[in-house]
Amino acid sequence: MKKIYVIKIGGNIIDDEEKLAAFLKSFATQSIANNGGLVLVHGGGKLATRLAEQMGIEQQLVDGRRITDAETLKIVTMVYAGYINKNIVAQLQANGCNAIGLSGADGNVILAHKRTAKGDVDYGFAGDINEVNTDLLKALLEQQMTVVLAPITHDKKGQLLNTNADTIAQETAKALSAVYDVSLIYSFEKSGVLLDANDDSTVIPAIDPSSFRELKAQQKIFAGMIPKLDNAFAALDSGVKKVIIGKAELLEQLINGESGTTISNE
Amino acid sequence: MKKIYVIKIGGNIIDDEEKLAAFLKSFATQSIANNGGLVLVHGGGKLATRLAEQMGIEQQLVDGRRITDAETLKIVTMVYAGYINKNIVAQLQANGCNAIGLSGADGNVILAHKRTAKGDVDYGFAGDINEVNTDLLKALLEQQMTVVLAPITHDKKGQLLNTNADTIAQETAKALSAVYDVSLIYSFEKSGVLLDANDDSTVIPAIDPSSFRELKAQQKIFAGMIPKLDNAFAALDSGVKKVIIGKAELLEQLINGESGTTISNE
Repeated sequence: MKKIYVIKIGGNIIDDEEKLAAFLKSFATQSIANNGGLVLVHGGGKLATRLAEQMGIEQQLVDGRRITDAETLKIVTMVYAGYINKNIVAQLQANGCNAIGLSGADGNVILAHKRTAKGDVDYGFAGDINEVNTDLLKALLEQQMTVVLAPITHDKKGQLLNTNADTIAQETAKALSAVYDVSLIYSFEKSGVLLDANDDSTVIPAIDPSSFRELKAQQKIFAGMIPKLDNAFAALDSGVKKVIIGKAELLEQLINGESGTTISNE
Repeated sequence: MKKIYVIKIGGNIIDDEEKLAAFLKSFATQSIANNGGLVLVHGGGKLATRLAEQMGIEQQLVDGRRITDAETLKIVTMVYAGYINKNIVAQLQANGCNAIGLSGADGNVILAHKRTAKGDVDYGFAGDINEVNTDLLKALLEQQMTVVLAPITHDKKGQLLNTNADTIAQETAKALSAVYDVSLIYSFEKSGVLLDANDDSTVIPAIDPSSFRELKAQQKIFAGMIPKLDNAFAALDSGVKKVIIGKAELLEQLINGESGTTISNE
């Protein structure tokens, strides 16, 4: 069974031109070594916020989440599916990696629905995923292409929707698990799941369901990591082989299991 | 041999939400009737100019052509490959047409190079096309998908380039002619090539090389149309079966040869 790696890169890499270039070079090398089979999911970083400021559009945040009004949707569509996605694709192509950039609307790859308002909070054009359609993804992966997914989906009624990139990575990994041996990699600024959030040397190399229960009971894991780990175990329960969390700069080592935290059911 | 229609839509449709929605509905119907096999090439309309104004970026024009400096390239990438391309794809999907939006960087579909400066005029990040790679296009068309091309290309060295949409349509039609029976349709605000530029009822229904020579000799064609017609004949000489110029609102009639001007070598 072909090995597929679904790799999410965080905003801190997107925002740093040099780090992004280095990451994409390494990503291209890994993709070529694996005969394709890599899927890159990117978020948006601070570019959308900066563009909104430049355009004089005020951003509304509720509990740290941006409310996607019509103007904000326009901005994130331009920045995520346009500027960031196409620049990533062009850089991967320059590194010999045959990349293709898609939003969820393209080929109906990710079907979503507009998030329903909760009490007083209307999240606007935020999308929750219904389904990842793997037909086109499979066809592209079989042609050894690398797919680059922007965090914009659609409702198949003509509405684009702003969708969380972590969730896109997770749902894409789950859907592809029906046909492939899928690893899901969340790369970010830290070296993995840490015992001490301020000390990068305290990475926990492996977590399984029983050690996760223990770590939670002993309150050894930074509270902010717990939803990420809950999601990781949910992905494993849906067929994903392993979830790896670690530093984007160490992509090769993450893929080879030599760095970061590997979460598995075994 | 499968019939393929490469259809360019002009800025006047892009700029008008209602006209665009009506066009895309008709386009989807035609695409479904043809079992896929439609390629849509869109320009940018006035959105990019408006966004630049909103961001306080001054546009430089030389002989009516926009100079693509780094900031302008960022804007056209966002607007063309992001906002316009993804909204067109989402609307086609809503109309039951399995569309996928691509820039020239995606799958290395359109390889270009930065236009060399002419005398004092440096066009900046404007791209002239080297080659349209049909492998991915063929694979998508064989899967009955509809391809939507944004006028952004790349040089395979990591640089995105702003590229004329008419030229993208023409080069794509020429490249696909190696394997398909290709018609190239330029849809715009007029009913076709007119004898009197101000009278839409003076459409010339058909032009062949000898009638084109005559019309030029008698100065019966509006001078602005001559480069378009020269390009049309160049496309025919490269294997395109026919070129049709006419009104976007009458897409079905253009495809069926019941409206517009049909340019052919016969």
